[in-house]
Amino acid sequence: MADNIIRLDASIRSAATVVGYLERQGPIGQCFDFYDDKKNGGDRFGQDTFERAESEMQRIALNCALGKCGMREEQLGAIFAGDLLNQCTSSAYGLLDFDVPYFGLYGACSTAAEGLLLAGAMVTHGVYETCAAVASSHNCTAERQYRTPLEYGGQRTPTAQWTVTGAGAFVVGAPDNEHPRLVAGLPGIAIEMGITDTNNMGAAMAPAAADTLIRYFRASRTTPKDYDVIVTGDLGYEGGSILKELLMSEGIELGARYQDCGQIIFTRQTQDTHAGGSGCGCSAVVMGSYFLPKLLRGEIRRMLFLGTGAMMSPSSIQQGLAIPGIAHLLEIEAPKKRKGE
Amino acid sequence: MADNIIRLDASIRSAATVVGYLERQGPIGQCFDFYDDKKNGGDRFGQDTFERAESEMQRIALNCALGKCGMREEQLGAIFAGDLLNQCTSSAYGLLDFDVPYFGLYGACSTAAEGLLLAGAMVTHGVYETCAAVASSHNCTAERQYRTPLEYGGQRTPTAQWTVTGAGAFVVGAPDNEHPRLVAGLPGIAIEMGITDTNNMGAAMAPAAADTLIRYFRASRTTPKDYDVIVTGDLGYEGGSILKELLMSEGIELGARYQDCGQIIFTRQTQDTHAGGSGCGCSAVVMGSYFLPKLLRGEIRRMLFLGTGAMMSPSSIQQGLAIPGIAHLLEIEAPKKRKGE
Repeated sequence: MADNIIRLDASIRSAATVVGYLERQGPIGQCFDFYDDKKNGGDRFGQDTFERAESEMQRIALNCALGKCGMREEQLGAIFAGDLLNQCTSSAYGLLDFDVPYFGLYGACSTAAEGLLLAGAMVTHGVYETCAAVASSHNCTAERQYRTPLEYGGQRTPTAQWTVTGAGAFVVGAPDNEHPRLVAGLPGIAIEMGITDTNNMGAAMAPAAADTLIRYFRASRTTPKDYDVIVTGDLGYEGGSILKELLMSEGIELGARYQDCGQIIFTRQTQDTHAGGSGCGCSAVVMGSYFLPKLLRGEIRRMLFLGTGAMMSPSSIQQGLAIPGIAHLLEIEAPKKRKGE
Repeated sequence: MADNIIRLDASIRSAATVVGYLERQGPIGQCFDFYDDKKNGGDRFGQDTFERAESEMQRIALNCALGKCGMREEQLGAIFAGDLLNQCTSSAYGLLDFDVPYFGLYGACSTAAEGLLLAGAMVTHGVYETCAAVASSHNCTAERQYRTPLEYGGQRTPTAQWTVTGAGAFVVGAPDNEHPRLVAGLPGIAIEMGITDTNNMGAAMAPAAADTLIRYFRASRTTPKDYDVIVTGDLGYEGGSILKELLMSEGIELGARYQDCGQIIFTRQTQDTHAGGSGCGCSAVVMGSYFLPKLLRGEIRRMLFLGTGAMMSPSSIQQGLAIPGIAHLLEIEAPKKRKGE
């Protein structure tokens, strides 16, 4: 049953993204809907703590996504949301304003894909007409929670990734001809391959991504060539090359169609982000503001999106446990009608 | 759309529960499937940390639930699981042994109900033939994470609840005539009413439970009299009386059919558990080993089960934020055929 593909038939009606200043300065910075300027105190979004700032980013993202497709919160059947913070408080507090049934998720950095998969399944089967999926991360909340206090200024290793300050919200509704379509999904299996280094999450997540991809190719009887783009959430440079090697050893070549949101969001050479971006926000904002518009414009016809997550906690690492990875997959197609047609 | 009931048509094929020594000594202690004796070191389940012990409880619970209905893990389409720990590591690590697609949830103490709701929806709509829902909490992992170190021995307030050491696993499959049936569900809306005291979670969760119940009665056009039992997950004595008062002010009288898993699991007078049990494990083990057998025996024909959760974190409390509560509801019916008929 592990190879059971979830057939989906739903459209991503709109997406909205909110990012921090560093993300705004990155190579796709112009794509995002909102950012907070450095002159406002730096990624605080008017709030007095970074945790509240992250909540505020979720609130803005969902409001904006609803606005883009002309919907009111009353029309949402449910919200699927999560983040990286202890007890997922960014989502619980950030979405309190919305008087909408709330399913809290924890999929580490794979949350955007997990949420889209569940929202897509609910809409496909008519449980709800419309659902939202929301995910976020904030560099300043995640780093001080997972690693070291911000003021400590610890040296970062070459394999370390940079937690993205970003929130993405997606509104999923009945299928139509004008929006990108969720056509299938395959949830990930948690896999742990002995990586204990929290500064090398790419390596911890890559085996899970390989497992999900292999299961999907087998079950759907497709190969990488059937997709214009195959994108992972935040394997970064380290995890991305491990994924390609793992698949190569199984005779599967991803080639140039393989991309990673964590590699796309920052300029490695100048932004000092080492092995790339990470965090729930990373895949959420890159999918929402970079890949979905490409699908809308017809530049991509068919793609696979894998949300990747490393499900450790500081306690589990301190207790000597290795990091379990997970990767949830979605197949997304361009709208039948191109924009403006 | 907030009042949209999710119609379910699925059976709870089996449930298994694992508890700690204190729970075993409680009034329904004989109902549970497994417990760890004090002579083994106290709720450690053979593990060297309490966190690993909690994971082990989840593993044992799911294994036992599968065994009870004669299923193998390969037959499970997906697992919906969660717990209270930072980054939900009890579930991520505890269920690593199972080669099954994994949806991580965070619903605080409402997780068992959230998981059953999603598993039920997946089975109802044929996405999967069979799913599992798993949830756990452990007094020693939760207390030291949320409140004070265990060794500190802080005085507990009268409204404080006792986090249950327990894990429950449920296997949900296609509807049949021999098992309790999930017939409907209503996910909760996150509600925050200004409670900032982590030693009074019952008060923080009661308004959410009242909201979900009122929405459900209205949408289903039923009244409390239509149910043999209406049970909340862990409002305890404090939250339970607040819920009854809140509903009374809306003209809804729950009466003697109202029960609370947190009130059932411990003997208040002798077990020093103050306002009652709490934690994801509380509702999971009381539902799994106390109420489901009553449904099976036909002693209860129709019941409402509300998983209640308080979605704060120590950081959010330290930053002065109030506690958002949530309550997910399930309507469960006795099997059409009584056991042994």
